[in-house]
Amino acid sequence: MTVDATQTPARRGRPGYDRDQVLTVAVQLFNDQGYDATSVADLAAKLGVTKSALYHHVDSKESILQTALHDALSSLEGTLDDAVREHDDAIGRLRQVVRGAVGVLARKLPQVTLLLRVRGNSEIERAALERRRAFDHRVTAIVRDAQSEGALADDIDAAVATRLIFGMVNSLTEWYRPGGPVTPDRLADDVLRIALDGLDRVPEGA
Amino acid sequence: MTVDATQTPARRGRPGYDRDQVLTVAVQLFNDQGYDATSVADLAAKLGVTKSALYHHVDSKESILQTALHDALSSLEGTLDDAVREHDDAIGRLRQVVRGAVGVLARKLPQVTLLLRVRGNSEIERAALERRRAFDHRVTAIVRDAQSEGALADDIDAAVATRLIFGMVNSLTEWYRPGGPVTPDRLADDVLRIALDGLDRVPEGA
Repeated sequence: MTVDATQTPARRGRPGYDRDQVLTVAVQLFNDQGYDATSVADLAAKLGVTKSALYHHVDSKESILQTALHDALSSLEGTLDDAVREHDDAIGRLRQVVRGAVGVLARKLPQVTLLLRVRGNSEIERAALERRRAFDHRVTAIVRDAQSEGALADDIDAAVATRLIFGMVNSLTEWYRPGGPVTPDRLADDVLRIALDGLDRVPEGA
Repeated sequence: MTVDATQTPARRGRPGYDRDQVLTVAVQLFNDQGYDATSVADLAAKLGVTKSALYHHVDSKESILQTALHDALSSLEGTLDDAVREHDDAIGRLRQVVRGAVGVLARKLPQVTLLLRVRGNSEIERAALERRRAFDHRVTAIVRDAQSEGALADDIDAAVATRLIFGMVNSLTEWYRPGGPVTPDRLADDVLRIALDGLDRVPEGA
């Protein structure tokens, strides 16, 4: 398999700082007060600029949403592509995609938070939900393969297992704060530890 | 320990059907389009009644929010009180509170969905967040006790473990649909199975 050209490089020259800053403040505002309840005027007021100055950087509220959702989704899809390319066994792929997804949430917390709150109230939101569903289906297929390989227990539905594992991962948007005492790597260890080994320490048959 | 009088009885005479129905439609509307973006006029239109007819049943939009959040919170607190009263060991309490919380989510999905989306934009929301935090702290203390008792592994932070377990539970609001093929009891089994035993089936030392 060749390197996927659609994958997002982790660090490449950024676009103009001002546009990035506008997007960052906008996404934060959407997360704080809800996308539907936020107007371009609210955003201009928050930035302390006029609406016409704001339109120098961004086309519309919708284009900010689309950019942020695409950023989150392409990063998640990139971790999945990497995992599939770098591992032949399903359990190796699953471990890497969970670890990669935790990393994406930690690095792009505002964008992923926005993504997880999308309800499908517009064409842009419905397209994002469709990409989330496609991602979920690909991960579910990996879980199913890991069950077939005998690496994961098969007395639990693969789709339910996938949703519960990503329930742990996605919960980070509710409580993880970058720069706190728990690192993303340690969080990924903890999620994989619970998902694969569980917390029980009572010996078998006790 | 005596029976806690603050506990919500599971089945008692309901208030008038009409008020219940208004609350149900309102909570659904809040979940679909966001609480802040929903007006009393939107709700009246959805119900096909006038605003003054609506005010016959409810005092205000805020009182609907408060009623729904209290309903979700008191049910969750009730499962915790039950678990503490009925079990002396922390692991038994944890199992029961996880099972109970899955049951509450299944029975009161719209109210708990609303609760989990609260961001603290008003006094009512901040009070609900404070009750959620108190609930989380009580569950974290149970996890810590289970670690001290030697029933749970203690190489993971009790607060992180609690948040990840409830990340699985709370994810149900995103994907569980009542009446589907998976029952709440089976879901509780699956959450406890992952949380305690994990999904790995590779033998120790393999």
